[in-house]
Amino acid sequence: MRIGLIGNGSWATALAKILTDNNHEVHWWMRSETSVAHLKTKKHNKDYLSSVYFHQNIFPTTDAIEVVEQNEIILFCTPSAYITDVLHQIPNDKLANKICISAIKGIILSENVLLNEYLIKHYKIKSENYVAITGPCHAEEVAQERLSYLTFSGSSEDNTAKISKLFNNCYINTTLNKDIFGTQYAAILKNIYAIGAGIGIGLGYGDNFLSVFATNCYKEMHSFLTQINPHEDTNYISSAYLGDLLVTCFSAHSRNRTFGTLVGKGYFAKNADSAMNMVAEGYFAIDGLYKILQDKQIYLPIVDAIYKILKEGYLPQEEFELLQESFI
Amino acid sequence: MRIGLIGNGSWATALAKILTDNNHEVHWWMRSETSVAHLKTKKHNKDYLSSVYFHQNIFPTTDAIEVVEQNEIILFCTPSAYITDVLHQIPNDKLANKICISAIKGIILSENVLLNEYLIKHYKIKSENYVAITGPCHAEEVAQERLSYLTFSGSSEDNTAKISKLFNNCYINTTLNKDIFGTQYAAILKNIYAIGAGIGIGLGYGDNFLSVFATNCYKEMHSFLTQINPHEDTNYISSAYLGDLLVTCFSAHSRNRTFGTLVGKGYFAKNADSAMNMVAEGYFAIDGLYKILQDKQIYLPIVDAIYKILKEGYLPQEEFELLQESFI
Repeated sequence: MRIGLIGNGSWATALAKILTDNNHEVHWWMRSETSVAHLKTKKHNKDYLSSVYFHQNIFPTTDAIEVVEQNEIILFCTPSAYITDVLHQIPNDKLANKICISAIKGIILSENVLLNEYLIKHYKIKSENYVAITGPCHAEEVAQERLSYLTFSGSSEDNTAKISKLFNNCYINTTLNKDIFGTQYAAILKNIYAIGAGIGIGLGYGDNFLSVFATNCYKEMHSFLTQINPHEDTNYISSAYLGDLLVTCFSAHSRNRTFGTLVGKGYFAKNADSAMNMVAEGYFAIDGLYKILQDKQIYLPIVDAIYKILKEGYLPQEEFELLQESFI
Repeated sequence: MRIGLIGNGSWATALAKILTDNNHEVHWWMRSETSVAHLKTKKHNKDYLSSVYFHQNIFPTTDAIEVVEQNEIILFCTPSAYITDVLHQIPNDKLANKICISAIKGIILSENVLLNEYLIKHYKIKSENYVAITGPCHAEEVAQERLSYLTFSGSSEDNTAKISKLFNNCYINTTLNKDIFGTQYAAILKNIYAIGAGIGIGLGYGDNFLSVFATNCYKEMHSFLTQINPHEDTNYISSAYLGDLLVTCFSAHSRNRTFGTLVGKGYFAKNADSAMNMVAEGYFAIDGLYKILQDKQIYLPIVDAIYKILKEGYLPQEEFELLQESFI
């Protein structure tokens, strides 16, 4: 198959590796001419997962319209903060009949919606043609071909199964899910919670506390998802929900956790963001999520504390001392 | 208060620290005269958590009967494999009216029962006088006074609350629970699952897989507990169940995980056990649990695979390849 890929970070690079390993053609939009030229000549992405080489099936370009026009399946994989910059290059009628896959873990901040809501509203895509990919899956381990699990969520079982098959191979196990909103919100929440785990580590809490923190994050996530989720038969004890939270809170690969650790050690959030050369998705997503929670009148104490620390200058130590008393 | 403590390992030492820090007297049975003499003169346990000093409130002895006779509250904290050796020193009428606290995470192998069942049967203790302490709590972090959570489970709310107050302080948060059987089984299961996590690590699986493994362990634990538990209102998303599993699977402090890692790297389980100078509780507990599962006709695939690897010489790689296909 031919797949159009929009995005240039480590997760986009990992997905390109999986697809090209499976002998699919990846028509890959990157922002900069330098990245495209480097990939064409040196056969790897110079900035992310540079140990992964692409010797075939890869067609990089900076022309987003061409990628969209020439492929029936478009995989979006930018940080959520940058997706509208790319989308604005694409005329509104170009996506209507495409299958759109999202590997974006965030909220479209201009309108506080998930990508499916945004694409349906502005690009008239069909809801059954949208499939979300979630983890638990750090890109670094895909690069190493260590067994990882991906969850594919969509309203059309056929489309979801068809898309999942593009990715399935000896190091990627795939599972299907109908809960498009829940899996995407879980992926957003886990990044925010991983920042919280990092803050705890930065403050000097140990493994005993971290396990209690993660448990209470899962409790809060579970409570939120059951409130917004129409699918009563959803199994929340599965990798897309609990598993994704765990890998993000406990793995040293997590950039959200690393970002949180800097904040816990006393960096201002803005400075911590600048100190990293990767995007901590949760730092952006929390703005949109906070507004969504206010609209829905849902109070999530852990998200609230992290928001206050990151955005309103509250002291991490004091917020965590309040939280720790409520944990069970 | 005066508390009699039976046991000499790192967890017993951590509990002795908490109790003496809270100004309670600990009358501490240790197996060897050398340990008692060392504690009396050098003020610390020479073999475990030796950084913890006991300058007051500590009364070590090798006389188990004296400890039981002179204290109304007896805290049992030996590896489960050794508890009957100590109990056999204690006449059957000496415990009847005592409050018995168990910090033992295992099964009494001679009869395949939990300690409460054993003490009620052989020592005629009252079921309302039994309280179980579970984590999530690695002893090493108690030694460092890093915030940790302990769960106290008992059928009498009064007794459970009273016992929990002995332990509560600035670095120990306590929670109460009615589910005596469930919390004790969760503590047994998590040690077995941590061996499994270690086997996975030893085999070369990465963080992505480990998070899926832990998720599916929690799913299996949840399924088992709901089958055996009469308390329908139990909140399994809490630290005694999920939290304890997480700290044991994800922390480098976990000796069960360390033991499993050796097995995953190719050591025979017996040799791995000898290579460590601490007891991997799960290695002993799995025998008893396996028989209990057979009696109850409950099949737990992950426990089953770990049993086959540890006790029947099945190959770790093959068992994990079968398991990984079933994970969600």
